[in-house]
Amino acid sequence: MSRTVFYISDGTAITMEVLGHAVLSQFDREFEQRTWPFVESVERAREIRERIDRSCEESGERPIVFYSIVCDEIRDIILASQGFCHDVIESLIAPLSEELDMAPHPTVHRTHGLNRDNVARYDARIAAVEYALSHDDGLSLRHLEQAQVILVGVSRCGKTPTSLYLAMQFGLRVANYPFIADDMDNLTLPPEIRQQRDKLFGLTIDAERLSAIRNERRSGSTYASLRQCRLELAEVEALYRRFGIPHLNTTNYSVEEIATRLMDKLGIERRIF
Amino acid sequence: MSRTVFYISDGTAITMEVLGHAVLSQFDREFEQRTWPFVESVERAREIRERIDRSCEESGERPIVFYSIVCDEIRDIILASQGFCHDVIESLIAPLSEELDMAPHPTVHRTHGLNRDNVARYDARIAAVEYALSHDDGLSLRHLEQAQVILVGVSRCGKTPTSLYLAMQFGLRVANYPFIADDMDNLTLPPEIRQQRDKLFGLTIDAERLSAIRNERRSGSTYASLRQCRLELAEVEALYRRFGIPHLNTTNYSVEEIATRLMDKLGIERRIF
Repeated sequence: MSRTVFYISDGTAITMEVLGHAVLSQFDREFEQRTWPFVESVERAREIRERIDRSCEESGERPIVFYSIVCDEIRDIILASQGFCHDVIESLIAPLSEELDMAPHPTVHRTHGLNRDNVARYDARIAAVEYALSHDDGLSLRHLEQAQVILVGVSRCGKTPTSLYLAMQFGLRVANYPFIADDMDNLTLPPEIRQQRDKLFGLTIDAERLSAIRNERRSGSTYASLRQCRLELAEVEALYRRFGIPHLNTTNYSVEEIATRLMDKLGIERRIF
Repeated sequence: MSRTVFYISDGTAITMEVLGHAVLSQFDREFEQRTWPFVESVERAREIRERIDRSCEESGERPIVFYSIVCDEIRDIILASQGFCHDVIESLIAPLSEELDMAPHPTVHRTHGLNRDNVARYDARIAAVEYALSHDDGLSLRHLEQAQVILVGVSRCGKTPTSLYLAMQFGLRVANYPFIADDMDNLTLPPEIRQQRDKLFGLTIDAERLSAIRNERRSGSTYASLRQCRLELAEVEALYRRFGIPHLNTTNYSVEEIATRLMDKLGIERRIF
């Protein structure tokens, strides 16, 4: 039977959830995970405590409770539950406080919060998302000088999601440009892109995976055929080598990994939002 | 002088970075943060150790090192540095191991990894991003029955970034539909959208903030005027009330917070990627 895990936070609980998921993946058991964000009232905390206790009675095992709540009164309600409660942040705060020889100032963890101090930074991040959208798939070759990265690659190799992720998570302005089948006989870079050569990053992918992805969109088409995929990839990879464009095979990588490896290879400093 | 912080991981380091940032925000000091992802080789680990030691000598203070590295040989190189090293995951693993009465199986934390077991889930998440793009800004009212959420609101109140974030982070299929100035005299919902009423979620925003955002795009226009913003918002909020559409004022919220509050209000269960 699966063990129940509760994530309880006075914020979005996004970070805690991802962290908890990574921790649980090290144990060879099934877990049923439930997230309770914005636990900011006594009423909501009491409701959750009842659910924890009910889950405990029904399953005969006490649920794992990962929590992060600044307000003492609300936290105490959760701690009075029958769950195994563990403060996710505190285990990092205590050793750091000792090392820094400094007391922490617990404030509600608005990790993803918006306030007077960071609204300009936030707006720039949203502007990066808009930039990615208006420079998606070669839509516009104008204002490429404003891009920090220009992704190139064949259709369906991961350019669009990577561009959007880089914008959303790291506030980078990313344009992307596709090489299409018609270009293959004489593959080259448009002059607007060639001018920004130090920003270029190429994506490639295994032909089998590309063909599978394209078949999802246009099943049985020439476009999706393994032969066509192989041809396009060979041409594009040759171009990467010819122009000395750094590139990455995305076959086994998620957008998070592609984005992180790209920044690492291009030496782009990461900003934290 | 700011204290230096290194995030060192054999993975993307994304989760660690966000967590570390939340922890550091509780201390009233400046920190200079550097991230080293994909520390998978002895050479790279040695290079980083040298940087940690150099930073220590230059500043006279040992850097804070948050790390998560599974391979003993590589981890030991980092631990031999002069930094104050703290394993981010381990402090959660140990108590959990005791509670579960089970030993952990340390595997390289591919928190955002792609493998045979999760590729179908990953592809569905990327398909959600594509769905959001093709149903952005009322582009298409077809296949709305496939949407899990339909965001509505005036131009520039946060619909597009919220849709993309919900797709990217939680794999939700989200369409969004704008109310435009021409609709205001007789504001209503198109029949395609009215059919999906239980999926609707309205965004609203303070007129002053909306006007500022619109002025960034079209400075001095009627569209950006405070008067026009107030008029549109009043009409749209009246419509939310008339149709009983749950809604949120986004003025002080980031996309992460809007997305999380939306799922909470609509009772959508969160999936973790």
